[in-house]
Amino acid sequence: MITITLPDGAQKKYDSGVTPMDVAMSISEGLARNVISASVNGTKVETVTPITSDAKLVLYTWNDKAGKETFWHSSAHVLAQALEHLYPGIKLTIGPAIENGFYYDVDLPEGKVITDSDFKKIEDTFMEFARQKAEFKMKPVSKADALKMYKDAGNEYKVELIENLTDGEITFCDHSNFTDLCRGGHLPNTGFIKAVKIMNVAGAYWRGDEKNKQLTRVYGISFPKDKELKEYLVLLEEAKKRDHRKLGKELELFTFSQRVGQGLPLWLPKGADLRKRLENFLQKQQVEAGYEMVITPHIGSKELYVTSGHYAKYGKDSFQPINTPAEGEEFLLKPMNCPHHCEIYKFKPKSYKDLPVRLAEFGTVYRYEQSGELHGLTRVRGFTQDDAHIFCRPDQVKDEFVKVMDLVLYVLKALHFEDYTAQISLRDPHDREKYIGSDENWAKAEAAIIEAVSERDIKTVTAYGEAAFYGPKLDFMVKDALGRSWQLGTVQVDYNLPERFELEYVGSDNAKHTPVMIHRAPFGSMERFVAVLLEHCAGKFPLWLTPDQVAILPVSEKYNHEAKKLSGLLKNYDLRALVDERNEKIGRKIRDTEVMKIPYMLIVGEQEVNSGKLSVRKQGEGDLGTLSIEEFAKLIQDDIEADLRIN
Amino acid sequence: MITITLPDGAQKKYDSGVTPMDVAMSISEGLARNVISASVNGTKVETVTPITSDAKLVLYTWNDKAGKETFWHSSAHVLAQALEHLYPGIKLTIGPAIENGFYYDVDLPEGKVITDSDFKKIEDTFMEFARQKAEFKMKPVSKADALKMYKDAGNEYKVELIENLTDGEITFCDHSNFTDLCRGGHLPNTGFIKAVKIMNVAGAYWRGDEKNKQLTRVYGISFPKDKELKEYLVLLEEAKKRDHRKLGKELELFTFSQRVGQGLPLWLPKGADLRKRLENFLQKQQVEAGYEMVITPHIGSKELYVTSGHYAKYGKDSFQPINTPAEGEEFLLKPMNCPHHCEIYKFKPKSYKDLPVRLAEFGTVYRYEQSGELHGLTRVRGFTQDDAHIFCRPDQVKDEFVKVMDLVLYVLKALHFEDYTAQISLRDPHDREKYIGSDENWAKAEAAIIEAVSERDIKTVTAYGEAAFYGPKLDFMVKDALGRSWQLGTVQVDYNLPERFELEYVGSDNAKHTPVMIHRAPFGSMERFVAVLLEHCAGKFPLWLTPDQVAILPVSEKYNHEAKKLSGLLKNYDLRALVDERNEKIGRKIRDTEVMKIPYMLIVGEQEVNSGKLSVRKQGEGDLGTLSIEEFAKLIQDDIEADLRIN
Repeated sequence: MITITLPDGAQKKYDSGVTPMDVAMSISEGLARNVISASVNGTKVETVTPITSDAKLVLYTWNDKAGKETFWHSSAHVLAQALEHLYPGIKLTIGPAIENGFYYDVDLPEGKVITDSDFKKIEDTFMEFARQKAEFKMKPVSKADALKMYKDAGNEYKVELIENLTDGEITFCDHSNFTDLCRGGHLPNTGFIKAVKIMNVAGAYWRGDEKNKQLTRVYGISFPKDKELKEYLVLLEEAKKRDHRKLGKELELFTFSQRVGQGLPLWLPKGADLRKRLENFLQKQQVEAGYEMVITPHIGSKELYVTSGHYAKYGKDSFQPINTPAEGEEFLLKPMNCPHHCEIYKFKPKSYKDLPVRLAEFGTVYRYEQSGELHGLTRVRGFTQDDAHIFCRPDQVKDEFVKVMDLVLYVLKALHFEDYTAQISLRDPHDREKYIGSDENWAKAEAAIIEAVSERDIKTVTAYGEAAFYGPKLDFMVKDALGRSWQLGTVQVDYNLPERFELEYVGSDNAKHTPVMIHRAPFGSMERFVAVLLEHCAGKFPLWLTPDQVAILPVSEKYNHEAKKLSGLLKNYDLRALVDERNEKIGRKIRDTEVMKIPYMLIVGEQEVNSGKLSVRKQGEGDLGTLSIEEFAKLIQDDIEADLRIN
Repeated sequence: MITITLPDGAQKKYDSGVTPMDVAMSISEGLARNVISASVNGTKVETVTPITSDAKLVLYTWNDKAGKETFWHSSAHVLAQALEHLYPGIKLTIGPAIENGFYYDVDLPEGKVITDSDFKKIEDTFMEFARQKAEFKMKPVSKADALKMYKDAGNEYKVELIENLTDGEITFCDHSNFTDLCRGGHLPNTGFIKAVKIMNVAGAYWRGDEKNKQLTRVYGISFPKDKELKEYLVLLEEAKKRDHRKLGKELELFTFSQRVGQGLPLWLPKGADLRKRLENFLQKQQVEAGYEMVITPHIGSKELYVTSGHYAKYGKDSFQPINTPAEGEEFLLKPMNCPHHCEIYKFKPKSYKDLPVRLAEFGTVYRYEQSGELHGLTRVRGFTQDDAHIFCRPDQVKDEFVKVMDLVLYVLKALHFEDYTAQISLRDPHDREKYIGSDENWAKAEAAIIEAVSERDIKTVTAYGEAAFYGPKLDFMVKDALGRSWQLGTVQVDYNLPERFELEYVGSDNAKHTPVMIHRAPFGSMERFVAVLLEHCAGKFPLWLTPDQVAILPVSEKYNHEAKKLSGLLKNYDLRALVDERNEKIGRKIRDTEVMKIPYMLIVGEQEVNSGKLSVRKQGEGDLGTLSIEEFAKLIQDDIEADLRIN
């Protein structure tokens, strides 16, 4: 008998040779139906791999990341089988699972190409094979035999791969009449795959090297239910519509210029105003929470980053040093604001009574990213952090943590993010050597975070070993309207920088102590946050934030003047309005405004001018009747206040 | 007879050989008494230099910059005479006039030093010689004779200077028994100097090269009236008290860190808030004036500055390019915001109806300055311009100019700068070749500026030939409370950048046209402006701007809690208050608050707590009696509104 330990700590005895699937079956039939992969003592295995000694076992379903990976890896085998069937003479190379689905890189026979019009045929063949419920069977193979097989088949790619493997560790995977070189980790059989979609086809160099031959990369995604594929395609379509790069251009929020440089956003007037409103909104909360604003330069001497340790760690992969024309000085574009804030802390001596000191800055930082990695506002080379650093005594960490959490939660709610999980990242309890700072301080800080989180009613996960080497942290994982997860609002405890910068305060014991530092950024960066928000709300921002709150629509050009006058009046009520002065029919104007997602419309014609009343329409809702300007302003103010009155 | 033309265009005939002093005498005896220098056809001469052909003559008095230079240059001769008298064996090197006074670098005899305690003796000897009314007499000397004289005297410094001069162009200047190598430009005689002060003594390397011997630099300043010296010293004392570096530290507005880098200011909380208030104040005016805010990155590709022409012109003297770790890209720290704004203009096509487009940004730029040139916030390496660029049609230049002027004037008045002159810089009418842009556009732009300025009642000077090569401009020369002049608020017309960036708009004629660009910055830079303002108001900022408007002074620690509650209440009225919680007597608290220049004080004791009323004191004025909190808030609001209600 052997002992199997499950993730919840439960232990059960089984005969030696039991498989993960047997264990699943012994727990419940429902579980067994859903198990698609397993790991034994941390190593991925087949669901049919016999277990012969005491072991920790984890069973994975489609809902686990590891489960999806197995599903899509198995699907890549079926894709290869289908392609080999459809394109005899094809040479298979590699075919991994990726974040959303899988691909296979193939060298097509001379003269063959795959285009969109072939996708249907590939999908049909794929599903034909999948429905055969062929079992995946791993088998060891000697290096000599493996090489011989692929040499005979004339597949120089697999030969090259095998040559780099160690004899005795090479395995093939068979299913149906198809065999592939494979390390393992499969579904029980192909029948689990109920739906597939070929997404795309692209060129890709063998081993990513442009000196090598260009292969054909076929992308696909598969699901255990047809319904899930359909939902995925709808989501994808919706995500395309909400792409912040598309919306950012349509709403004239930001742009890029090749001449300014890749990954360096230019905020257009409507975007800059919106960003400013976001900053002011947070700034107001920060002032109330006792933060003080500072402003620091966008460069620092190399010495500053040698002190902070950033230069040693990131220097060679960063924007390179800026030399001066004389005097041999070296500066770096600042990649973070913390070293500057440490220098501000040192401006004058501090006592324990002066703490906490909370220094906040909307600080623009620059980090090099390869041009291929850049993506709209979510991956840029210059971005503005809504940064702050709290310098406090160890006994203040918990209170400060609670306050930061409340601030982050307020911000998320005010921006209509309702679904989030707090991830607490702690030390690896089995490897305490790799962390700096005393055991006592770590214990205190970890306890403080855990306690702080427990005081608020939020979903929490704890990740051991995910702490930074200089302190534990808390991340808010936020789900957007499409169910995609974003990491926003990081709070990080830091014992490292205060020591490196020799920060101190005089304690009540009259001795010198080192403060603890908390880094935090509720938005993360203004750029990334605006991108996520744009996709989350599909461009329909909360009323207090949206660029144009009101569209004034004169029924004809005759009323343009009155419309402009009205726009001036609304300004006095702090309302942002645009006037549609085009020579278009009112119906057309209303339709266009609906598309632009402007929340309110005011129609201006003979009747309105005579009565001095406003004809009000709400986006997506239609006519609200007539109101005086005061009533209308109050309506909007009430809407906004309700929006921001959260807790 | 020859014709002498004076600056006002008046012409007079004189015998050949007439001297500038003769001409002055022929105009008025009073003028002659005050003339201390002259230039003939643009070249500086002695007042006794004979004029032998038709010439343009300018006479200078103490009130002219050139007059002061002559005065102080002559004074350096007398200082050298005095030092030679007091320190036999001294070796003279060079002794120029400087912005405020003059200095002489000397190599003192072995074992001699000059310290503060020697200043009186030097001044007395100086004045003794000055009172002799010795005439300055220029005389030509051959290179051989000049070299011989200084070689015999063992003065290797003068020998080195003479070796670099051209034979036939060398002159000495004698006065009394003293002779010095000199190019000329002196007072009629030493008697004009009625007062002298030795200001300072410092080390200075020969020729500024630290490999050379260190000399002794003696600084002095002299005046035509003793009263003026006294006034100068009072001013100097006052300027020292108002030094923005001193006040900036005392008021905790900003600091510098060697580790961050020289010339890179760190704005402390009170300074950052103050700067933000200034920015918001201007921003509000700008929104009303139709400006749109944008935000652009602090770097740009080298290509951007090659396009703008900045790289060719300033590249080698600037912060050097930033390389990327891969891909071979090159970026530059942005030295100005205009190229970025040009790229934003190009975001979408413009028609004549879309103009003017006014893009504003508080844009931080970086410009290399040698470390020796850095000075507090007035000369830094990174600063934030209150920048804006107006893109308009040629026919809109005048209107836009008037609007910009009104904005600048409003800003200056709101900040209590009452004395300013507008300097219009136009083309050199005799050398039109060196300017770019059509004659027609220049004529239009110059006329527009002149017309715009004439529409407002401001002191104006016109400077021909002072325009930039790409357009005419207007500067506001502002006098501060100590009478020192600062250049603030530049408005610059530009035909160059729109062409280089190929900016265009479709005119009413349906053809493509190039817009005119106007650069403008009312403050200039936030850093320099805050420095000037600090010195102008000696740290006593206008009420709306000052960091702490109210100091709440509890009469004993017992009332600290009530005081803090009051501070919270005042926040609701948008008032900024601090609480003096120290365990000090109330008299001491009042005195300290007076020194800190906090405009209002509220005393909190038994009586105030019981009555619920405030005991109010005004800085520099004393007790204002008791007020309710509403009355007090209104008092301050009224003060502020009166301050900002200017036009």
